[in-house]
Amino acid sequence: MKHDHTNNMLDAQPDPGRRKFLNTAAFAGLAGAGLSVGLSACKQEQAAAPAPAPAAGSVTAAKAGGSKYHLAPGELDTYYGLWSGGHNGDLRVLGLPSGRELHRIPCFVPDALVGWGITNESKAIMGTKPDGSLKYTVGDTHHVHGSYKDGNYDGRYAWINDKINSRIARIRLDYFVCDKITEIPNIQGFHGIFPDKRDPVDPAINYTTRVFAGAEFHIPLPNDGRDADNPEKYRSLFTCVDAETMAVRWQVLIDGNCDLTATSYDGKLAATNQYNIEGGYHYEGMMSSERDACLFFNIARIEQAVKDGKFATYGDSKVPVVDGTRAANADPATALTAYVSVPKNPHGVNASPDGKYFICAGKLSPTASVIELAKVLDWFDGKLDDPDKAIVAEVELGLGPLHTAFDGRGNAYTTLFLDSQVVKWNVDAAIKFHNGDTSAQYVVDRLDVQYQPGHLNASQSETAFADGQWLSVGCKFSKDRYLPVGPLHPENEQLVDISGDKMHLFADHPVRPEPHDFIIFKRELLQPKQVYSLDDFPLAVKDPKEGGVFRNGNKVTVKITSQAPAFDPREFKVKRGDEVTIILTNLDKIEDLTHGFAVPKYNINFIVNPQETASVTFKADKPGVYWYYCSHFCHALHLEMRGRMIVEA
Amino acid sequence: MKHDHTNNMLDAQPDPGRRKFLNTAAFAGLAGAGLSVGLSACKQEQAAAPAPAPAAGSVTAAKAGGSKYHLAPGELDTYYGLWSGGHNGDLRVLGLPSGRELHRIPCFVPDALVGWGITNESKAIMGTKPDGSLKYTVGDTHHVHGSYKDGNYDGRYAWINDKINSRIARIRLDYFVCDKITEIPNIQGFHGIFPDKRDPVDPAINYTTRVFAGAEFHIPLPNDGRDADNPEKYRSLFTCVDAETMAVRWQVLIDGNCDLTATSYDGKLAATNQYNIEGGYHYEGMMSSERDACLFFNIARIEQAVKDGKFATYGDSKVPVVDGTRAANADPATALTAYVSVPKNPHGVNASPDGKYFICAGKLSPTASVIELAKVLDWFDGKLDDPDKAIVAEVELGLGPLHTAFDGRGNAYTTLFLDSQVVKWNVDAAIKFHNGDTSAQYVVDRLDVQYQPGHLNASQSETAFADGQWLSVGCKFSKDRYLPVGPLHPENEQLVDISGDKMHLFADHPVRPEPHDFIIFKRELLQPKQVYSLDDFPLAVKDPKEGGVFRNGNKVTVKITSQAPAFDPREFKVKRGDEVTIILTNLDKIEDLTHGFAVPKYNINFIVNPQETASVTFKADKPGVYWYYCSHFCHALHLEMRGRMIVEA
Repeated sequence: MKHDHTNNMLDAQPDPGRRKFLNTAAFAGLAGAGLSVGLSACKQEQAAAPAPAPAAGSVTAAKAGGSKYHLAPGELDTYYGLWSGGHNGDLRVLGLPSGRELHRIPCFVPDALVGWGITNESKAIMGTKPDGSLKYTVGDTHHVHGSYKDGNYDGRYAWINDKINSRIARIRLDYFVCDKITEIPNIQGFHGIFPDKRDPVDPAINYTTRVFAGAEFHIPLPNDGRDADNPEKYRSLFTCVDAETMAVRWQVLIDGNCDLTATSYDGKLAATNQYNIEGGYHYEGMMSSERDACLFFNIARIEQAVKDGKFATYGDSKVPVVDGTRAANADPATALTAYVSVPKNPHGVNASPDGKYFICAGKLSPTASVIELAKVLDWFDGKLDDPDKAIVAEVELGLGPLHTAFDGRGNAYTTLFLDSQVVKWNVDAAIKFHNGDTSAQYVVDRLDVQYQPGHLNASQSETAFADGQWLSVGCKFSKDRYLPVGPLHPENEQLVDISGDKMHLFADHPVRPEPHDFIIFKRELLQPKQVYSLDDFPLAVKDPKEGGVFRNGNKVTVKITSQAPAFDPREFKVKRGDEVTIILTNLDKIEDLTHGFAVPKYNINFIVNPQETASVTFKADKPGVYWYYCSHFCHALHLEMRGRMIVEA
Repeated sequence: MKHDHTNNMLDAQPDPGRRKFLNTAAFAGLAGAGLSVGLSACKQEQAAAPAPAPAAGSVTAAKAGGSKYHLAPGELDTYYGLWSGGHNGDLRVLGLPSGRELHRIPCFVPDALVGWGITNESKAIMGTKPDGSLKYTVGDTHHVHGSYKDGNYDGRYAWINDKINSRIARIRLDYFVCDKITEIPNIQGFHGIFPDKRDPVDPAINYTTRVFAGAEFHIPLPNDGRDADNPEKYRSLFTCVDAETMAVRWQVLIDGNCDLTATSYDGKLAATNQYNIEGGYHYEGMMSSERDACLFFNIARIEQAVKDGKFATYGDSKVPVVDGTRAANADPATALTAYVSVPKNPHGVNASPDGKYFICAGKLSPTASVIELAKVLDWFDGKLDDPDKAIVAEVELGLGPLHTAFDGRGNAYTTLFLDSQVVKWNVDAAIKFHNGDTSAQYVVDRLDVQYQPGHLNASQSETAFADGQWLSVGCKFSKDRYLPVGPLHPENEQLVDISGDKMHLFADHPVRPEPHDFIIFKRELLQPKQVYSLDDFPLAVKDPKEGGVFRNGNKVTVKITSQAPAFDPREFKVKRGDEVTIILTNLDKIEDLTHGFAVPKYNINFIVNPQETASVTFKADKPGVYWYYCSHFCHALHLEMRGRMIVEA
């Protein structure tokens, strides 16, 4: 296999010397030659065409025709996966190990199946303009995390971010629906999120009450046109959102851009890995320094500062903003933040399940930095003279390390974007190696993946109960792994068995672009409800007798119930020009008996699950007969389940 | 298991006597008792809990760790499946036998990933209101079919319907994108579609040039408020759309409501099965007659009538409408249509791959009717005195027969909605049995499915090259088959091996509600392209040097190119109040190197695949700095791939 030697950092044979850091010049040269690093690597992988490891399914066949890796029809998965949907703007629910996509929960973007963005209830959550239309119809979800109790998921909530419009959504994990969305002020390009795991002060609060959010893009404050030409005045903020009210509690003004977010198991620290500490606004400028930072937030001190009134506000926002810049936090006795220096443009910060470390992966450096949290606290307590001394290991892993997962047995698994590999490494051995024990073999195993992996996660990895069973790897390019379907390729989520010493790849699953992060946890941690209660909905039409047309001037409310195979009433009349609100309650009580409600030419379609109520409001501006019909298969007479809306001229 | 005996038609033990027809009284009684037929059956199935057949994967393990049923990582599927997406409004591409969802092609409904409904190009296809906003954002796709040549798919196009707004979309199967959408006038609830397979007159036209569309809901003509209270004046139409121009060629006024559509292999006949020949407008009325019809259209005669000016038009529509009502077509010598009587409320009409028969399934009757096409043509030719004599078999299959697929070996496979079964039956044996040979065993096999199957289809079933390998069954209820995910359940697409004498269920695949119909064909029939040509796009910015800001008064065009890891230009300025059009060309040429383009707070996100150009137009109404960024992972410096739009106050 031939290589242009300007491209030698992509060689299949690792060269530890070359790999130390990718320097700016080499990188710029690549870009200048019109080569893309990721893709050159892709071509290599294709040429190398590593043979997939054989699946052990035939060996470990289980009852009912299934196997450890392939469920028989009717067999249930043992793990839930919550996946971000990328610029689909949704949260996806997968079953593992099958990789089945069981649900998509619309959050930031309308969903025509559910009627998300069509019903009044969903529009109230999504947010509207003064004219009643949706404020946003695009989104870009990256990270999804669940609420914690005692270091494990407690099945109450999940949160997910929208990078485009700086929003955070909360998902109720009983009904698997989004119930709140908050748009965060003063920031742009909100990327990483993480819930806290307990309160930093009150030991009784052993569960999530805050969600932290890191903003990537630095902007003028306020962003109203002033200082647009003054990039040195641009700033990013780190944000705390209240887990229950979903109100923004406080923000921290920082140096550099935030990327991912992590929280400690003791509740005391949150962190974001940072790129562009330089404040550059082209990629060359963003990677000019050899080191960026992993930035730590002392939650208790920040909240005390807010309490003490030591904050500013910007523009129309009332959110208190404390000063977390490097210059203002040099004194550990009063510092709200600690900047731990790590190699340039790191990508990914992950908390180890033993509660001891945050791992910061290097991206443009082939290394991972292991930061000991006790030492960061030591710095805040005046017991350590330099926050950089909290780094207990900085070891080479391979090219383009991005994210790290854990198996609960002391091993970490890091994606290597450029090498298209997952590397399994032992954290204790890495610390020993860093401390000079060159005999410490910290790399345990390597697995080729297809291709260019971004996030990865292991079962229960982000809890104190990491169980080391399954690893999912989100490969950004699928290239030749699936039948061709035109220019837009699916992404490739690969599933790996990590229960043994060696990693074992056993399945490719295509996903619609583009999931980023995800979490995987045991199915016992959730107890979803499958039928609503009528009382959950203030507008519920609890009996068909309550149905009918109720007029108040030109405002008309039509109350309808559904019971297969009919709506009640089965016809109604309104007048041209009326403002019509239809309230529909599904009186069917049986699990899985969902009805749809579609009105031709009026741009209305939504579903009502068993015992659910939803409503829509529209102007009856087109006279004629409009057959509303059930759009969700329900019954042998589903096709006949329709009625007439007559709009009188 | 106990049953209420008013509910006895749902007994697990078939009783041929009871099953003859479901009579109206029994059905109404059920509804009155608040029981839903489909769901009572569901409960039975759950109680019965049929054990799934064991998968043969462990027996027939193939190279690379895969099996006949489970692909090893990196193994490619052998069949494409095109699936309708139901009220998601999309067309989905699956690989089979893996069941992997490889792509979703947005058609009628916006798609935030692609930017469908965001870009100017997609909005032009979808249709807009005078204010530039989308005319519709909901859809309800049911049926998808491909273009034919010589009785097989030719890989040019697929078509898909939108029931809510009576639209038909065309998908280019080279790039897997929707390129045209037509809203059909004069109809509501457009349901079944089917392309013709050759021209009825010109033997040189051995490929698809027409697509037929059946409208379900009968409405006043024109539907402008007149005759709204006059249901006997309501009518449905059958429509012909030109496959190339996508213009509506002609329509046929009919009695009854259309349901599914089928076309003959010789190009001479199209048909729709009909329910509600009664013209009822509640479900009881729609099922009061014991028989409805399978309605045949004589394409050559209809087109001659249009040519001869024997048509009407309605309202603003210029589309010629010929009279296909029963009363006007009693004389076979001049008839445009033939009404073949079949048991009440049939659901599904499917053409057998030998070209001889249409099978019409009974839904409310436990039977399927086999109609011989040569005999229908005989009636039009005056050689048969009664079109009902074209029925060569009407045999009992089980409760709730809906749709039929074929294996090319003389067997038909019909879904039984109420029985939750697929029945395999032999067509020749059924004809013999119907002709009095009671020894003819036409039922070959039965397979329990989970639960309530609607459509099914077999590999190549709707071509002259049905190959009898795989059968997919679209089960409407999944109930207990997957981990619970709240009230909205996935549907259950079950995959069955039909290559042997017995059907063998080997996989459940959850799908987001709700696919209806689908087609499955050999992968060799498609040759998708994975990189666009710059010349495909009139607005293409072919060189970064052509980029920049071009002002014409307050209309500003910004031409941008993308090449990983940067946009060019990397910043631009506009003034508050400008109407800005951004044209973006992706100059990256490498397969799978897609970029996204997101602008915070301006509701803009779309992708550009390799060598693709797309544009958006918006008003720059918010001053400040807006970082546009690549929202589709592309490169190691993807996160740094961003630039500034500065809107000057």
